[in-house]
Amino acid sequence: MSQYKDMGKEELLEIKRNLELQYKEMKCKKLSLDMTRGKPDLNQLNLGMGMLDVINSTSDLIGEDGIDFRNYGILDGIIEAKRLLASMVGVKAENVLVAGNGSLPLMYDRLVQAMLQGVRGHTPWCRLEKVKFLCPVPGYDRHFAMTEQLGIEMINVPILADGPDMDMIEELVAADESIKGIWCTPQYANPTGITYTDEVVRRFAALQPKAKDFRIYWDNAYSIHHLYEDKQDNLLEILAECEKAGNPDLVYTFFSTSKVSLPGAGVAGMATSIKNLEAIKKQISLKTIGYDKLNQIRHVRFFKDEDGFKSHMRKHAAILRPKFDLVLEILGRELEGTGIADYTRPNGGYFISFDAMENCAKEIIKKCQEAGVTLTAAGATFPYGVDAQDRNIRIAPSYVSLADLQVAMGVFVVVTKLVSIERLL
Amino acid sequence: MSQYKDMGKEELLEIKRNLELQYKEMKCKKLSLDMTRGKPDLNQLNLGMGMLDVINSTSDLIGEDGIDFRNYGILDGIIEAKRLLASMVGVKAENVLVAGNGSLPLMYDRLVQAMLQGVRGHTPWCRLEKVKFLCPVPGYDRHFAMTEQLGIEMINVPILADGPDMDMIEELVAADESIKGIWCTPQYANPTGITYTDEVVRRFAALQPKAKDFRIYWDNAYSIHHLYEDKQDNLLEILAECEKAGNPDLVYTFFSTSKVSLPGAGVAGMATSIKNLEAIKKQISLKTIGYDKLNQIRHVRFFKDEDGFKSHMRKHAAILRPKFDLVLEILGRELEGTGIADYTRPNGGYFISFDAMENCAKEIIKKCQEAGVTLTAAGATFPYGVDAQDRNIRIAPSYVSLADLQVAMGVFVVVTKLVSIERLL
Repeated sequence: MSQYKDMGKEELLEIKRNLELQYKEMKCKKLSLDMTRGKPDLNQLNLGMGMLDVINSTSDLIGEDGIDFRNYGILDGIIEAKRLLASMVGVKAENVLVAGNGSLPLMYDRLVQAMLQGVRGHTPWCRLEKVKFLCPVPGYDRHFAMTEQLGIEMINVPILADGPDMDMIEELVAADESIKGIWCTPQYANPTGITYTDEVVRRFAALQPKAKDFRIYWDNAYSIHHLYEDKQDNLLEILAECEKAGNPDLVYTFFSTSKVSLPGAGVAGMATSIKNLEAIKKQISLKTIGYDKLNQIRHVRFFKDEDGFKSHMRKHAAILRPKFDLVLEILGRELEGTGIADYTRPNGGYFISFDAMENCAKEIIKKCQEAGVTLTAAGATFPYGVDAQDRNIRIAPSYVSLADLQVAMGVFVVVTKLVSIERLL
Repeated sequence: MSQYKDMGKEELLEIKRNLELQYKEMKCKKLSLDMTRGKPDLNQLNLGMGMLDVINSTSDLIGEDGIDFRNYGILDGIIEAKRLLASMVGVKAENVLVAGNGSLPLMYDRLVQAMLQGVRGHTPWCRLEKVKFLCPVPGYDRHFAMTEQLGIEMINVPILADGPDMDMIEELVAADESIKGIWCTPQYANPTGITYTDEVVRRFAALQPKAKDFRIYWDNAYSIHHLYEDKQDNLLEILAECEKAGNPDLVYTFFSTSKVSLPGAGVAGMATSIKNLEAIKKQISLKTIGYDKLNQIRHVRFFKDEDGFKSHMRKHAAILRPKFDLVLEILGRELEGTGIADYTRPNGGYFISFDAMENCAKEIIKKCQEAGVTLTAAGATFPYGVDAQDRNIRIAPSYVSLADLQVAMGVFVVVTKLVSIERLL
């Protein structure tokens, strides 16, 4: 295909007229397709139904250490679930806290604790003039939203092919004591799909932040969410690297089974040093008597171990892979070589990150919406919702059916071409 | 029985020698009985086992409004669960938010939101010089612990027979803008067991606090937790009273099924005005994608409605009542008329509040512990753990078996007499 920018005005106008006709027809179809979020589809939900059978009124609900899963107690999760969740991310069970049905509340709790009580004896952030977080971009909108709500200033850091720009990060954290954290989605990143290289992980583990209460907020949401058997990214486990680097307390890692078992009823966990865990347990002991242990043991009995996770995730992949393949096939066929689009080809996770030409993303998303295809809001993948170049669009192919996805991507590529030509003319 | 204070020294010494012998024998038994918390016992847990059968892999898990309970979404609880929990406390479903497995996190969230973002546009508390809470005493230790952790100053308010001292409360909140809240357990109060009268509830609803972000934190934990069929306290519903009094936003009420279904895996809710709810939903939308909807529908299908709750709570009462009766029988037989003890005879809830002679509670609890009977720590029912008169002991009869309870109370009355006589001599 020819690069659009090399075409003459007449040629572009001719293509545009044709696209406008197609777009008009699409609008007449009154579509209603939602691609805003990385939600599992109905077939994926059905994979988790066995979860609802593994415990019932005849089950033995006493733990290996004698606790009754039905009663109050156990602040940091049952040992059986610690072991299971530890296997998801390759850490030791003793470093794990198992909580409720989402990892976001765990992250929010860490920020709130830092704001109000401070991190392990350091000044509470709410008493500081300024607190800043580094935000690799594009990134996860919910990280940015909670950081903004708490009044923490966000600094963009570009994501390169191997991970965030480490030169920039090393320099910033060493120089500025008000920088207290960095948000990372290190594996199959939201939305870029990249996985940080071993070298990047080691540089993270060796960071020398000026702020002693600086932590890496390592949202390892997609640790076992591979799409392919033959192409899998392997993330170096950072907790062990931090220990080796003499920085044992530097990282909080987060993970959950939301996209493994059932999104509304999974279990979330975090892993960090024993010393950090002790401080965290002390804080959460004031806000809860304990998380839902029955849902924890449900997960243990359904998945059993790492191998149980692996075989289950292969079933998810079998549902997700054709959708990613379809999106990439359509983008390839329709946009490859046009010079108006750049996009990622992830080996796992839930997103394809799409970069349009400058100043096009908002308009593409608006025009898709007008044709009944809802995409994640423009700018959502950036702090404060501001994508300065107005280029990035997060494509979330998981929730819609294959047939609908084909229709939606048909709209998307027509709109992308149309908007790009409007900009070029 | 004679009043101990009227006895002569010789008589007291004679009784004391006898008690010391009994106490020595009790210590030899190497007991290990835990009466620290209001935990349901094994038989009560078994009542909830049907909860684990009402949904399984063959269940229809689509809500009446079309949402899939298994997937992400629905911030404030499914409508079916709102309706069910509304029936627990006599409010409208539209005023209810249904959350996760405990009401403590909901209360903590409210305080955190007030600290960091402020209540509906008012200055965040973390930016104020001083924030104070009124604390009716004796009260619930966990309320006080979270308030203390957040640096909020606590002011004791005595609880009278009909509820907290309303004259004092009205005067304080009208005069001091730094008073931002009050903790209440209005029905079968923890630990006194009293229920606020209609008059007290109406005075609460009509409060005119100087601080516009003042809220009543109404922890209605025992709304359906009656012990008797023929003696039941009825708490006036405060939300409606606040509306009538022209103070619709004045109260947050909290409740949960922790002591109804299963303590580790219940659902919690709160009710407040629609305007308050909107502000709360906005905040929690940043920390969670939603609470566990499967556990919510599990409760709906198991209990069905108010009548379902009622018949279920009668089964709990049948287990709890003999324990309360036993405690009251032993206290009556051994201590009535001695003038060394005062205690409550609640119609519901989980506690009997026991007042020893001044400066005795700590020593009684210590000596019980030495004989293997663990009670809630002395002072726990007061802010900062300070019971100035050192009198109050919270008796929690629910968790131990009837046989163990008899033994434990045997130790308790012997120790109470012994310590009282030591003080009198």
